[in-house]
Amino acid sequence: KNILCIAGDGIGPEIMNSALEILEVVSKKYAFKYKIEEEFFGGASIDAYGEPFSDKLKEKIENCDAILMGSVGGPKWDNSKIRPEAGLLALRKHLKVYANVRPLKVEDSLCYLSPLKEEIVKGTDLMIVRELTGGAYFGEPRRLEEKEALDSITYTYEEIEQIVRYAFETARKRRKKLTSVDKANVLATSKLWRKVVEDVAKDYTDVELEHMYVDAMAMALITNPTKYDVIVTENLFGDILSDEVSVLGGSLGLLSSASYSKSKIALYEPAHGSAPDIAGMDIANPIAMIYSLTMMLRYSFSQDKMAEDIENAVKLVLDEGCMTKDLNSQYYVSTSEFTKKVIQRLG
Amino acid sequence: KNILCIAGDGIGPEIMNSALEILEVVSKKYAFKYKIEEEFFGGASIDAYGEPFSDKLKEKIENCDAILMGSVGGPKWDNSKIRPEAGLLALRKHLKVYANVRPLKVEDSLCYLSPLKEEIVKGTDLMIVRELTGGAYFGEPRRLEEKEALDSITYTYEEIEQIVRYAFETARKRRKKLTSVDKANVLATSKLWRKVVEDVAKDYTDVELEHMYVDAMAMALITNPTKYDVIVTENLFGDILSDEVSVLGGSLGLLSSASYSKSKIALYEPAHGSAPDIAGMDIANPIAMIYSLTMMLRYSFSQDKMAEDIENAVKLVLDEGCMTKDLNSQYYVSTSEFTKKVIQRLG
Ligand SMILES: CC(C)[C@H](C(=O)O)[C@@H](O)C(=O)O
Ligand SMILES: CC(C)[C@H](C(=O)O)[C@@H](O)C(=O)O
Repeated sequence: KNILCIAGDGIGPEIMNSALEILEVVSKKYAFKYKIEEEFFGGASIDAYGEPFSDKLKEKIENCDAILMGSVGGPKWDNSKIRPEAGLLALRKHLKVYANVRPLKVEDSLCYLSPLKEEIVKGTDLMIVRELTGGAYFGEPRRLEEKEALDSITYTYEEIEQIVRYAFETARKRRKKLTSVDKANVLATSKLWRKVVEDVAKDYTDVELEHMYVDAMAMALITNPTKYDVIVTENLFGDILSDEVSVLGGSLGLLSSASYSKSKIALYEPAHGSAPDIAGMDIANPIAMIYSLTMMLRYSFSQDKMAEDIENAVKLVLDEGCMTKDLNSQYYVSTSEFTKKVIQRLG
Repeated sequence: KNILCIAGDGIGPEIMNSALEILEVVSKKYAFKYKIEEEFFGGASIDAYGEPFSDKLKEKIENCDAILMGSVGGPKWDNSKIRPEAGLLALRKHLKVYANVRPLKVEDSLCYLSPLKEEIVKGTDLMIVRELTGGAYFGEPRRLEEKEALDSITYTYEEIEQIVRYAFETARKRRKKLTSVDKANVLATSKLWRKVVEDVAKDYTDVELEHMYVDAMAMALITNPTKYDVIVTENLFGDILSDEVSVLGGSLGLLSSASYSKSKIALYEPAHGSAPDIAGMDIANPIAMIYSLTMMLRYSFSQDKMAEDIENAVKLVLDEGCMTKDLNSQYYVSTSEFTKKVIQRLG
């Protein structure tokens, strides 16, 4: 198996290291054979090659089975001609990863970290399915002039159908509830969205379907998060809602995400950003990166046992009270100490 | 003073009644002379005239000094040719109310209602300033076909400047902090937005300015709401973020909003919807409507004392533990009983 690692910027390299050390140890136990390729991406790629998404990276993508990504961007490149984020969007388009999936499961033992009251957040187990290659992110025409600007939100029936089918399939494997989020009382693209959802729903009568407006959803995620199972929405709404969801559990450092395409290549990455303020300090929480690795082992390589093994080790270390600074600002261990503990548990 | 009351749909008429009864009593005390005009709007207007925003209403708008609105819409009109929401957008455009303002102040004594932990939400006192007549809500072209759809997000320099100046002025009268929210790492309209904010900021060097991406803001409002003072953003982001903010205090029933234009006419309405499920049951919370009235008395008629008097009476009644069902589902009073209590306090 060929794994392409793009550690990216900020804390990306540190947490990627942590995940790869763990993979090295656990792969021996399971005789899992793999090869790692690495490449610059985002800001690091701008520094190395003058562009965030290089031809070198494109070449390496041709030969890989899955991509593990750290994090991208930082204030250093805020004024660069092409920004790291443009590379990220180009990468998504290149890979055609239309489905971005972010699970949020709030463990009882970590409820205390949540900004929400325990009685509200306890038991939350939901998943946001975000359309990732359409909508306002890629819509044409787009125009930026001195006195006016224009963005286009565009969707075709097929684009919507693809992500909605994916969401129904996912719901079927979970608690069989799907919430579709749009702004159909205002937007034409949302009216089409709702129509497609209704059409596709005919093939999934076993899944309970609900429509919500995006503004009402932004409320409901805070007041009643346990009500939801799978939530599907378009690109820009998904960006906002999945970030909103990501803090409900109390730490961004625990959340991973996966982006799937119709081809075999999927992209796995932490839900958090590059945290430039703590980069290089060996205090970042590597768990989201480690969980991105386990998502990859499961979904790209069908290594469920191996993934479970790693996840259990992480949980045991957390249960011991061994945590990085974001989880416990009083008594904390470093990124590398945390990683060592997980490896000990695995050994 | 001519006040145009459009009670609208759902619980609109009940809570409007409540506000008007209070106004009648308190106006005598202050010898405040006013005339009420009423008209159908939204679904009620579809039922009466076949359209949500009638010429009759347009005529009455010509002769009014301020508009007090209840709430609009409901499932009854979901399949009507023109929906109530279309009337709402047409009304906003007609009035040119470019600035929608929603304050959230979380009273210490009501912290327990919040879905957020008390230590996070306590002391929150912020205001969302939402651009209300541009962006994706009104952008052209817009297209809905069988196999594809398009919405346009459009902004001119002038449109942005107008709302941003309003927000800076507002911040200056408060704690002098302004957070501008955009998605400038992706959208052209957001890049223009940020440019205008930077330009206007030169005239307000006494106000501390911060830029945030909309996804990061959706997180920060939950994790750190006390940090913010005035938040300014474009129409669609404002729709989502102001609804998100509206639940942080624990009850939508407490929040009012105002929409200002360059003309003298402003529009005042509760932040909540028409709640068709409880319409006609005399259990709706009238406070948001009452606070919309006090916003009107303050900003349209400079009747600060009268507004304060009403607000104090509401607070005293709440402090007595007299609450509607949304605030206390065990021991509650009806809408009309609550109103009577407030009137007693005022007398
Ligand atoms: C960095 C940015 C372009 C990106 C997005 O908006 O998609 C990020 O917020 C994300 O959610 O992955
Ligand atoms: C009803 C709807 C069109 C409206 C909006 O999106 O502006 C509402 O959500 C609001 O915020 O006033």
